[in-house]
Amino acid sequence: MKKLIAEFIGTFALVLFGCGAAVLAGAEIGQLGIALAFGLAIVAMAYGIGPISGCHVNPAVSFGVFLAGRMEMKDMLGYWVAQTFGAIAAAALLMFLLSNSAGGFAGNLGQNGWGPGYLGEYSMVAALVFEIVMTFLFVVVILGVTGPGGDAALAGLAIGLTLAVIHITGIQVTGVSVNPARSIGPALLAGGAAIGQLWLFIVAPLIGAALAGFAVKMKLIAAD
Amino acid sequence: MKKLIAEFIGTFALVLFGCGAAVLAGAEIGQLGIALAFGLAIVAMAYGIGPISGCHVNPAVSFGVFLAGRMEMKDMLGYWVAQTFGAIAAAALLMFLLSNSAGGFAGNLGQNGWGPGYLGEYSMVAALVFEIVMTFLFVVVILGVTGPGGDAALAGLAIGLTLAVIHITGIQVTGVSVNPARSIGPALLAGGAAIGQLWLFIVAPLIGAALAGFAVKMKLIAAD
Amino acid sequence: MKKLIAEFIGTFALVLFGCGAAVLAGAEIGQLGIALAFGLAIVAMAYGIGPISGCHVNPAVSFGVFLAGRMEMKDMLGYWVAQTFGAIAAAALLMFLLSNSAGGFAGNLGQNGWGPGYLGEYSMVAALVFEIVMTFLFVVVILGVTGPGGDAALAGLAIGLTLAVIHITGIQVTGVSVNPARSIGPALLAGGAAIGQLWLFIVAPLIGAALAGFAVKMKLIAAD
Amino acid sequence: MKKLIAEFIGTFALVLFGCGAAVLAGAEIGQLGIALAFGLAIVAMAYGIGPISGCHVNPAVSFGVFLAGRMEMKDMLGYWVAQTFGAIAAAALLMFLLSNSAGGFAGNLGQNGWGPGYLGEYSMVAALVFEIVMTFLFVVVILGVTGPGGDAALAGLAIGLTLAVIHITGIQVTGVSVNPARSIGPALLAGGAAIGQLWLFIVAPLIGAALAGFAVKMKLIAAD
Repeated sequence: MKKLIAEFIGTFALVLFGCGAAVLAGAEIGQLGIALAFGLAIVAMAYGIGPISGCHVNPAVSFGVFLAGRMEMKDMLGYWVAQTFGAIAAAALLMFLLSNSAGGFAGNLGQNGWGPGYLGEYSMVAALVFEIVMTFLFVVVILGVTGPGGDAALAGLAIGLTLAVIHITGIQVTGVSVNPARSIGPALLAGGAAIGQLWLFIVAPLIGAALAGFAVKMKLIAAD
Repeated sequence: MKKLIAEFIGTFALVLFGCGAAVLAGAEIGQLGIALAFGLAIVAMAYGIGPISGCHVNPAVSFGVFLAGRMEMKDMLGYWVAQTFGAIAAAALLMFLLSNSAGGFAGNLGQNGWGPGYLGEYSMVAALVFEIVMTFLFVVVILGVTGPGGDAALAGLAIGLTLAVIHITGIQVTGVSVNPARSIGPALLAGGAAIGQLWLFIVAPLIGAALAGFAVKMKLIAAD
Repeated sequence: MKKLIAEFIGTFALVLFGCGAAVLAGAEIGQLGIALAFGLAIVAMAYGIGPISGCHVNPAVSFGVFLAGRMEMKDMLGYWVAQTFGAIAAAALLMFLLSNSAGGFAGNLGQNGWGPGYLGEYSMVAALVFEIVMTFLFVVVILGVTGPGGDAALAGLAIGLTLAVIHITGIQVTGVSVNPARSIGPALLAGGAAIGQLWLFIVAPLIGAALAGFAVKMKLIAAD
Repeated sequence: MKKLIAEFIGTFALVLFGCGAAVLAGAEIGQLGIALAFGLAIVAMAYGIGPISGCHVNPAVSFGVFLAGRMEMKDMLGYWVAQTFGAIAAAALLMFLLSNSAGGFAGNLGQNGWGPGYLGEYSMVAALVFEIVMTFLFVVVILGVTGPGGDAALAGLAIGLTLAVIHITGIQVTGVSVNPARSIGPALLAGGAAIGQLWLFIVAPLIGAALAGFAVKMKLIAAD
């Protein structure tokens, strides 16, 4: 139960800091600031709740860890639920805060997307490829640094900075998901186009994580 | 006594760097720069004076540490005094520096606030909720990384980067306190609206820290 | 073979994140964001694939490691091939993504250069000196932190932040190579002026790395 | 001799990266980028040459270390010479690079200053107080993290990030010295007003470092 509370709080913090940076502060801090918010949220939580739950705060990460043989399916499913509710709770808090500001809530909770009207206006196929490749790299780093020969003490920092660089490069493409819970929370509460595009941000991260999980399991990418 | 000197210097440095970034350099570095200044000030002091006093430099943090059962009340009260005087000293130095610049001192020492005329103009309730939630998360990270299973060597870095991300996301909301001393110093010397709003930045951080302290004490959020 | 896969993935990620930050997001994040992308890409890969291959992801680094007597020539040649193909693959992915965006692909894949029309318009001699000096410093740091008395756990972070600062200072000069593979990938796919200038970004990094490798080998710069 | 070579290279790199960021890239990266360049230069060198010489790369730091009783005077004097020549060499390289660019060399090598025409136009007294206080805090962190109870592995990172935050807050005031060598190199080669103001950037850092060195020596600020 403590693990699920930790995953709830961790995913809540990730969405509150990351999507919050985008919608509360985006005009002030720019995409570099938003990217660092997502990354440093992971650093914060990795050291704060990591000792409790491992700080996945991401269903795709839990899936990759499961496929790599380092987690039971039953535990993964519990993590998925806690992560999703944490993300929804953070999106709700952001909606509350915005509704109590001069700018008000204008439908933006930092949801992911693609196509006409969304940032760099990338195609659906580009979005799909991008999310698969980025989640693959993300989970390769996670499994590498937390596995044999990895450096456990530095893991939280390395994983957080990896998420930061994924966002630095990729916000223009899809807003960057690589994390179904991070996409579900804002989409459910913001509604609109994000609901119709949500499937991609569930499917693509899971595919990317699966590729990484299998590659590590098969010892294609793994230290001895 | 050495501990109190260390807490004085540490809180002095936090306000000097953080509020100083806002009022000496804000127009050049933006909110991302200010946020990093607050965070890196904690990193600096955590490694510089942490070995002496633990580097709380924040009455709410000392309160959370006390409630978690890791500090005596008598020591906490001493820390509170040292932290508050450190913050006041830093605000005084900033006022001196500004008075000796081309721009002069125009009443801004980086004080916290809310409502009409203050950054994103959030309501009092939004400010209250925001400061409670953010201090809760901040103290959860602090107690997690410095507790059982935590990584002591990385603690200063993790805590500093947590304060940075809180500021990245939240400067628009309240200027970010999560630290009564950080609010008291600038408010006392700048005067004006900040005095009337000071109560919130004392009460809310203490509530947030108390929630975190109790949650850890009750083992709801704690590694075994 | 696992080492070559790791070097391929690592160099792929370096070019995808670094050059990707420049061409997908450059207008949003500026040169500071691009510089951090290159640096944090190294941090990510150092902890993710470092335990497998050492995470050179740079033919000049492998050359310096070889000259310092810490690697066989045969292994170095394999690394060179894997690194170069990884960089080409990343440039191809960036070209695909750009072709599927509103902006389209306009010939820019983050290639290095100098002279009229290239950023700060530095001369060829300035570019040559700059790349030699920067690669020398980069490889001095790498050999220092991974050698006797160095701090292995922090090595990935230190090396990544070194690459970041090289880019912060130097993007205006040459776009910063210090890595022949990083230059070859974008140049081959973008074509144009970058092909004619590619020689400098192969020769200069190898000279800089050789100077560092020899200095360490001769114990001019080395801990006892 | 190896130590002096290391201090020469380290101070060369500090001025090349830090002042180079200001004069080669300042218009692109802003004061936040310049501040990070100074800080990350220290991180790079601390891990690269730290195992050889301790990476002072700053006469004031060597003075503080000497006064704290952790270094012989004879060694300090050698360090001072190597550091000063390293800074001069870097300023010369920057002058060469600028002379070979579209913008040319216009007398700016990142020299420190105060008064009318210099950034925020602070008074001489403000500049003096600022440099003393900042160098005091800088050397407190250095002596704290490298002393008893300090965390040697993280020292380079903590010290570098401390220098970064000093610059984030203070570039507007004096350009930030806290390091006589960093001021001497650019002033000597740029000439002009910087020569007449150079005394302050030698005296103030030495005073600040002396205060920190004595405070640690007297056990006023020191872990047991």
